[in-house]
This record gives sequence, structure tokens and C-alpha cells, in this order.
Amino acid sequence: LNDLFLKACRGEPVVRTPVWLMRQAGRYLPEYRALRERHDFLTLTRKPELAAEVTLQPIRRFGFDAAILFADILTPLVGHGIEVEFAPGPVVAKPFRTREDVERLRGFSAEKAVPETLETIRILKRELDVPLIGFVGAPFTLACYLVDGKGTKTFPETRALLYRDPGLGRELLDALADMAADYALAQVEAGADAIQVFDSWGDLHPDSHRPLPGLFDRIRAAGVPGISYAPGRPRETGADVASIDWRTPFAAARELSMNVQGNLDPMALFAPPELLTERIRAVLAEAGDGPGHVFNLGHGLHKDTPVESVELLVRLVAEETGR
Amino acid sequence: LNDLFLKACRGEPVVRTPVWLMRQAGRYLPEYRALRERHDFLTLTRKPELAAEVTLQPIRRFGFDAAILFADILTPLVGHGIEVEFAPGPVVAKPFRTREDVERLRGFSAEKAVPETLETIRILKRELDVPLIGFVGAPFTLACYLVDGKGTKTFPETRALLYRDPGLGRELLDALADMAADYALAQVEAGADAIQVFDSWGDLHPDSHRPLPGLFDRIRAAGVPGISYAPGRPRETGADVASIDWRTPFAAARELSMNVQGNLDPMALFAPPELLTERIRAVLAEAGDGPGHVFNLGHGLHKDTPVESVELLVRLVAEETGR
Repeated sequence: LNDLFLKACRGEPVVRTPVWLMRQAGRYLPEYRALRERHDFLTLTRKPELAAEVTLQPIRRFGFDAAILFADILTPLVGHGIEVEFAPGPVVAKPFRTREDVERLRGFSAEKAVPETLETIRILKRELDVPLIGFVGAPFTLACYLVDGKGTKTFPETRALLYRDPGLGRELLDALADMAADYALAQVEAGADAIQVFDSWGDLHPDSHRPLPGLFDRIRAAGVPGISYAPGRPRETGADVASIDWRTPFAAARELSMNVQGNLDPMALFAPPELLTERIRAVLAEAGDGPGHVFNLGHGLHKDTPVESVELLVRLVAEETGR
Repeated sequence: LNDLFLKACRGEPVVRTPVWLMRQAGRYLPEYRALRERHDFLTLTRKPELAAEVTLQPIRRFGFDAAILFADILTPLVGHGIEVEFAPGPVVAKPFRTREDVERLRGFSAEKAVPETLETIRILKRELDVPLIGFVGAPFTLACYLVDGKGTKTFPETRALLYRDPGLGRELLDALADMAADYALAQVEAGADAIQVFDSWGDLHPDSHRPLPGLFDRIRAAGVPGISYAPGRPRETGADVASIDWRTPFAAARELSMNVQGNLDPMALFAPPELLTERIRAVLAEAGDGPGHVFNLGHGLHKDTPVESVELLVRLVAEETGR
């Protein structure tokens, strides 16, 4: 097993900097688009053989140092019976507003809600020679989808709920944190080697209740590293690895977490090779020579990313950091 | 003239903290909705008597310490002949991609492009007994609309252009900065007492060229204070007043600018009176007793904001800060 990624997550010395890219499985790959012609997105996330195949595609093509489970952030909610339509962004049939809505989250069991996802992990563990990253949505980001009911720029309904009824807000976030922990631990049990917590909208969070540190404690207690992904201002989360976006300097993240992943802007992959090379070298220089660096982007790959840019990136990071 | 606002913008002592609210003219007001039933949004921004009336509505109702010109951030571009449809968000008919597109911005003259807006300012100066804030879009935020062609969450096309062809990106931002300066100065000449620069998407900007300091220099040279509005991480802009959102502590902003406006979350106005009162007192406590504070929100008022919450806010700020 190639353990560069796990060593970097623990701040141990490595012979070269490991690299994987957020949304490395997806629409920019011709082999993914070929699969999508025959199956819709939900089917790809739900059928274990298909989800495993999509997860493996970028590993085969580029030799990334980690694979990330192909699933949607709302997969466990859908599996638990919350009605969500993908049109193509998620639309929640009955947005959450009350204490009764929070009750709909009780009794979550990953084994019952998402057996296909756990089976996908078991298949992948037989196929992969690199670590597998499982993932969960962070409580606040899940709440954004449940309360606003769809993707928006600033999730006003969710924020209004937290101001209007802070007690209800706390119950909702705690229930989602319990669900996220159960889901994360089931993934670890099935074989996931690390868990990334996606808090895509965390930077919009008002100052109140943030159950993230407790979630990361539970992931660490399960024996695997926890990685936070929360674009915007770096914040204390208790994760082993902090992901940073293209607007956050490494130094700001190192104050909170010794181990850092990120920050190349995915849109930099649209630059011509010379300019992209400069950008990648700049990230490596800023990250420094020490341990605890996982090369990654500051956000997911864009669907129109040129495949050649990804090839250049993987080759260059290996050349520049091989020791 | 009530000059509390202008004094606070200059960091001079005031007898109480001035207050105005971003998007204080708009859909949450019954009198605005009544006007909108008879006229579409573009007509309201274009007819001087109507735009002046909309600007005055919240001053009459709440007695705010400053008025802000009712116009759209894209008004000068539309006036200059760039085709934009409001559906209801702006959609640019021919998104900018090339050097020829940048040429479309040349020869901008506010007198020719937006005579109605300048006339609106002249009408308002006869009617108002509080300062009038003019405003312009920041170069990067205007570029986001022109290049991506519509509102998105992360404006990938704009960022891709800046990476793909940094020289073209610089030309585009400089041309927009020239246009913004010309438009701001024409507003000052027509009577605007301050200029707020809206950089709503500035936090997405890659690290390259930022022509904001030059723009604020030109506003200051025209003899009025410049206010920056750039949600996200506080950044050096050269403005006299920094607006901060609900996620940014006053202390972080004071490091960059002595004078600060913001940061109550507009969604806090959905809280019941006791909780809202606590929130407002917390902002006042954090801002401190010293000069250089303009009470405002961290983002524009939401269209469903209860009018009573705005009344409570204005009354409470006066009571708590009157000296």
C-alpha cells in the first residue's frame, strides 16, 4: 500500500508530497462521461459496482495517492428517507423548520440507510493500493440544505432559524452531528482510511453553536485522520488536516493545524502549461519543505478542466518534491 | 444637515452612533412594494423622480442618518450600451472573453451613460437633510458579471480568464476601474456626499491585480469619504471606512481601517425582540465607544425582514449610544 497520504496526514516525513484532487472523479473525465451517458447521477452513487468504478477511474489514469469515495453529501439523508430531488442541484421536498422536522433525523443507522455505500467501500478496499478517503457533510452545511431546501448563495432561512430559535438550531446541529459521526464511523468500519468533513457553507455560519470539534474527536477515536474542508476563513475545528482554499495562505492554516491540504485554485488549471507550472511551484514553495503537506486544490475540479493540466500537475508535484 | 454619518466616516467624535442599513430601500417596505406593482425594477432605477422617491422612503419612515442612491450595480454598464437582461438576476447578453470585449468599455462618460442617475442625485440633494451615499461596483465584481455573464457562486469563468491571460485580466480590471472612477466622480459632482464601492465577490479574487487602492485615492481626491464593501476576509483597500460582514470581528477591520461599518447579520432581524436586542447590544459593545463607527448590517436587508425589527434597531442604537 502507498501510504504517503496517511503519513502526510499525521505529519510524518515522506519521500515525496502526496497528491489527490477534490472532485477527481467526475465530469472532466471522458470515462466518467461515458458512464453518465448510460446511468444518471443518483444511480452512479447508489450501485456499489458503479460507484466503485467511478472512484477508481482517476486512480487508474493519474496514479493519485488517495482515492475518495464517490457519493453525494446528501446520500445518508436520502437513505434515511428525507426526500431530495436532484434537479440537478438538490431540492428538499419538505424543508426543515420545526422541532418535529428534527425528529425526522432520529434513529439514523448507516447500515440501514446506506448499505450500498458501505458495500462500495468494501469493494474499493479490495481493488485499491492507495488509501480510501470516506466523507461526510458537516452539520451546518447539511442544515443549510435541509432548512433552505436548496442551494443558495447565503442560506438566509438557515441563518434566520438559528437567530429565531437558538435552542432549535442547537438541536438540529447536534442531531446532524450524531448522524455524521455514525455515518463516518460506519465508513471506517467498512474500510475507509481517513474521513473528510465537507463544511462547504461553514463560512456563513453565525457565531453560535459549532459541533465540529466533537465530530473530529469521534473520527480520531475511530483510529483514522479527520480532514476538514471549510472554504473561507480558517477556523479551529480539531481536525488532523485543514484544507484551505485559494484565498487562504498556508501560514494562516498552520496556526490551526500542523497538516495542511490545498490551496491551488482549480481554475488555475485553465492556464497554459508555463503559467500553471509557475502556480504549482508557488504553492509548493509556500507549503514549505517540511512534513504535513498534501497537495490538493482549494475547491473541487471544474467540469471543463483539461485532462492534460491534471497530468502536468501530478507529474510536476512528483518531480519537484521527490527526495 | 445631520452630519453624524460623515463625521463617523472621518473618525470624528459624534453625539451618537449614526445608522443606515444596506438595501434600506427595497422589497421589505410596503411603500416600495406598492411602487413596484406599478413599475418594473429597471424603470424604478431609471426614472429620476421614481428613483429619488424609493431612496427617500426609508429616510421618511425610520429617520436613518444617511440615504443611499437607488440604482443597480450594473446601471452604468447598461447605460454605456452593454446589453443586460434582468431575469430577475442580471444576464449579460454577450459575456466578455476577449480584448475586443474590453474595448467595449472605452469612452465611458457618466454624463452620457447615466444622466438619469445624476439627475436623481440632484433631486435628492434638494430633498434630503442627511448625507447621500453614491455607489459604484468594484472592478473585480463588475468583471464577474461581465465574464461569467450571470450570478454564480464562484464565478469560475472570470477566475479562469485571470489565470489564462493575466495581461487581458489586468486590462479588463483597469478599464472597469477607470469607468468606476468616472462614474463615482460624476456622482460627487452631482452632489453625493460619500461613495461606497461594492465588491460583493471580491473575496473570490485570485491573488493577481487589484486596482481598488487607486480607485479609493481618486474618490478621496474628489473630497468625499470612500467606503469599501467586500464581504469575506478583510483586506487592504485604502478606503476611509471598511464595511464588515457578520463573520468578521471589528478588531480585524480596525487593523486595516480606523473607521468601520457593519456587522449585524441581516438575518438576526428575524429574531424575537429580546434576542435581537441582545445581538444589537453585542455589536455596539464590540465596536466600542470610540469614534469611527457607523451602525449597519453585514449584508443587505432580506426582502422578508419585519419592519418592526428595523424600528427596534434604529431606536435602540440611538438610546444606547446617545451621549
